[in-house]
Amino acid sequence: MTKPLISLAALLALSAPAAAQEEAPEYPSPNQIVAEAPLEQWVEIPPEDLVVMRLAPEADGTERKVIIQLMPAPFSQSWVQNIRTFARSGWFDDITVNRVQDNYVVQWGDANYDNPESTGEPKQLPEGLIPTKEDDYTVSGDAIGLSTLMADSVRDLALEADSFIASDDHTAAVIIANGLVDPYAQLSLFHAGWPLASNMGSDAEGEPAHVWPIHCYGMVGVGRNLSPDAGTGAELYTVSGHAPRHLDRNIALVGRIVEGMEHLTSLPRGKGQLGFYEDPAKRVPILTVRVASDLPEGERPAFEYLSTDGEAFARYADARANRRDPFFNVPAGGADICNIPVPVRRILD
Amino acid sequence: MTKPLISLAALLALSAPAAAQEEAPEYPSPNQIVAEAPLEQWVEIPPEDLVVMRLAPEADGTERKVIIQLMPAPFSQSWVQNIRTFARSGWFDDITVNRVQDNYVVQWGDANYDNPESTGEPKQLPEGLIPTKEDDYTVSGDAIGLSTLMADSVRDLALEADSFIASDDHTAAVIIANGLVDPYAQLSLFHAGWPLASNMGSDAEGEPAHVWPIHCYGMVGVGRNLSPDAGTGAELYTVSGHAPRHLDRNIALVGRIVEGMEHLTSLPRGKGQLGFYEDPAKRVPILTVRVASDLPEGERPAFEYLSTDGEAFARYADARANRRDPFFNVPAGGADICNIPVPVRRILD
Repeated sequence: MTKPLISLAALLALSAPAAAQEEAPEYPSPNQIVAEAPLEQWVEIPPEDLVVMRLAPEADGTERKVIIQLMPAPFSQSWVQNIRTFARSGWFDDITVNRVQDNYVVQWGDANYDNPESTGEPKQLPEGLIPTKEDDYTVSGDAIGLSTLMADSVRDLALEADSFIASDDHTAAVIIANGLVDPYAQLSLFHAGWPLASNMGSDAEGEPAHVWPIHCYGMVGVGRNLSPDAGTGAELYTVSGHAPRHLDRNIALVGRIVEGMEHLTSLPRGKGQLGFYEDPAKRVPILTVRVASDLPEGERPAFEYLSTDGEAFARYADARANRRDPFFNVPAGGADICNIPVPVRRILD
Repeated sequence: MTKPLISLAALLALSAPAAAQEEAPEYPSPNQIVAEAPLEQWVEIPPEDLVVMRLAPEADGTERKVIIQLMPAPFSQSWVQNIRTFARSGWFDDITVNRVQDNYVVQWGDANYDNPESTGEPKQLPEGLIPTKEDDYTVSGDAIGLSTLMADSVRDLALEADSFIASDDHTAAVIIANGLVDPYAQLSLFHAGWPLASNMGSDAEGEPAHVWPIHCYGMVGVGRNLSPDAGTGAELYTVSGHAPRHLDRNIALVGRIVEGMEHLTSLPRGKGQLGFYEDPAKRVPILTVRVASDLPEGERPAFEYLSTDGEAFARYADARANRRDPFFNVPAGGADICNIPVPVRRILD
């Protein structure tokens, strides 16, 4: 009867100060794993790949700045280069946010372009734009070192494994969840900080493996007209709702928003078709769009992402798929790739 | 040399008036399929299951009304009944929207409840609340007629089929996509107008099949403290970003927003931890919350959903998974269940 129902060691653990318990939780949350990731697992984003978009301030004078990270090679480089050309020629200055469709996209561009209701003239495109083509919505798996053999073997391993694994071949930097099954592709993976999907091996027509960026929340894509038009990069949108993955391979993705997303997602929804603003006065002016490397050093933002090839990211992704921190009772045992956002943060001085 | 490159019939088709072509597209869009669905495939939502939440008007006087559909039996009925009790006792009146976290949730409740920084007193809970328990986050598959055998055979059929199929046994109303694989569950399905997930058969411990509602965009759930607390229904949130499916089976889901979602999603994001407003003045007052059946007939909203057991829904879901309307080049060949939102619309007089 006097036998304690709980051991002395357990009692001591229970009576430890709350702060100490918080410092060493048994199962850290995904955010804790990211916060504690070693500095060497963070990768600085080249300032040439960062774009600073200044919206008109809010009614109360609050500044609104949106920062976009452009995709690196081998993805979408014709559009990415065009976006730098648009920014450097000042073409983007004074365009507007024209479309805010709930649970879908926020879109900005020249409101007079291809707009039968507009009374103004569309802007003249700048010189030096690169032609774009639909074939470049995807790239060969070889371009990121994703050989068919490797993709197959990594997938086999992933299906067998109890948790996330990193590939041995760091040139490909593939990390796959056990249970990271994807209704939209045979394989989903992270490479060099980006979420991608692939058809892995050859398809029914014997086509080799292809790989493509995917429409997760915050990704930035290129508006276009009907095929074969592939858009120039003048008209851009960001995903502001549940991942519309049916757009994958149908539109060029060129980057993602790494800061200031809330300035776009909290805008009033458009009441016209597809969420376009019916009243031109509702459009939000974009004052300037600049490539970060063109800004004076003091105004240049600096960002880094958590390497998707490192141990910390593997643990983070595993924790996103299997939440065991105190709030959770049942770990999911898997995750949608768009529910594992790649951590990106400002580099503070 | 004079042989036409295109047949006369094709030329005639091409020269048909644009309007006629639009009336009979070869591949209708998902929205077109819904618009053309026969009236008998729409199911009226009982007014007892609709809740009207009036927010304070916008600065310019614009009314903000949010309409929530509560989940029917056998799901979450203790919380659902409590929500009716909160509404009927006037308890919800004058609570506030306290948390707006980008790409996650918008949450409302009593700002003085469990808030160490608050100076006010929390509201007294009304009488007649039903105790809630974690076990009710899921229900037995039998409760919706989802026998293990049936789930297995339906899944086998789905994996073989080229397109969406409806079950023969309409008591279960299961529709599954070929390729509707789910990283979070063995099976995802629609039942009686709701997206659900299931572990299908028995798990490693021999537990029988369970089924549960899932965290898609617009779903409404019940805030709670740490386990074993399961929340009363006083504190509610809606999903305002990419589906946070890791919350499935960890929180009670009680409904979804069927109109006015944009009034919540376009609110300014909170700058405090977890997106709570740091400045109490930013909280948005909720004026009244009423069960639709309690409103005078003239003010009572009426809504209907597209039966998830019908032929039109099967075609709609298939078209969501395989977009072939003119904008699209590559159909996805599958879809995430949260990317197939169940169509709900107002019944017009």
